[in-house]
Amino acid sequence: MRWSELKDQPCSVARSLSIIGDRWALLILRDCFLGVRRFDHFQSRLGATRHVLSDRLKTLVRAGVLTRKRYQERPARSEYRLTAMGLDLYPVIVSLTHWGDRWLADRRGPPLALVHTRCGATGTATLTCAECHEPFDARSARVEFRFAEPPFAGAAE
Amino acid sequence: MRWSELKDQPCSVARSLSIIGDRWALLILRDCFLGVRRFDHFQSRLGATRHVLSDRLKTLVRAGVLTRKRYQERPARSEYRLTAMGLDLYPVIVSLTHWGDRWLADRRGPPLALVHTRCGATGTATLTCAECHEPFDARSARVEFRFAEPPFAGAAE
Repeated sequence: MRWSELKDQPCSVARSLSIIGDRWALLILRDCFLGVRRFDHFQSRLGATRHVLSDRLKTLVRAGVLTRKRYQERPARSEYRLTAMGLDLYPVIVSLTHWGDRWLADRRGPPLALVHTRCGATGTATLTCAECHEPFDARSARVEFRFAEPPFAGAAE
Repeated sequence: MRWSELKDQPCSVARSLSIIGDRWALLILRDCFLGVRRFDHFQSRLGATRHVLSDRLKTLVRAGVLTRKRYQERPARSEYRLTAMGLDLYPVIVSLTHWGDRWLADRRGPPLALVHTRCGATGTATLTCAECHEPFDARSARVEFRFAEPPFAGAAE
């Protein structure tokens, strides 16, 4: 399978990865959620070459995840902001953060904390069923195949 | 920044991506959550070369995300299973799935559905605050920097 074929796979994970399945793209998105908007700022934080950074930003704009807006005319300068589609990636970034906090932190603990403004609790973002409010984890969920190909004969319901 | 430096960044997203920030790795993990365990099965589903697949599986085993277990001696055959660390990546895969379902599905709709076995609801996995049970989204959370470098001077609290 080529990467250009990913977006045509009958799989939402593969389609998502065709846009954001790249470490630079995910680090750019992390920075967007921290409020970074300008090219030079992304570059100084990420240490990517201008070419790579420009390429990834273009891909994200083309996909509708970021929008580009001119904020200065001479010299021409643009900033990048998350669209509704981009903001909706928050659970992906938070899940990566919490996993890293839990399994990869060093002695100092998590480098930053996500605070739920409403109640003031920290590090409490949890995948939950919106219907019954119980945890939604690998052990409490199953897959129903619609038209995706199940990995095993007979696995489809 | 080189990829080999990612794991040393004071950022849980960067550290997570040093292990799973690769489309093959994430597709392998998707398949693991669907019950795929064997090399040839991964290969036929992913279409990766044996070299690439073997390399990514080794990385995931070395990182502690998968465990490798011999299930046959002649010829030698192993299978790969998610460890506790690997199972804990479920929210990442589910978030990628739901995002793709919402923004990238074609006319047919989502290719598969995640059913919460406990209550039977479908597609209801939501990031929620474990403390107050309200949604945990980009608008309702803020970042407190501990020792990570904030993107703006004065952004640290």
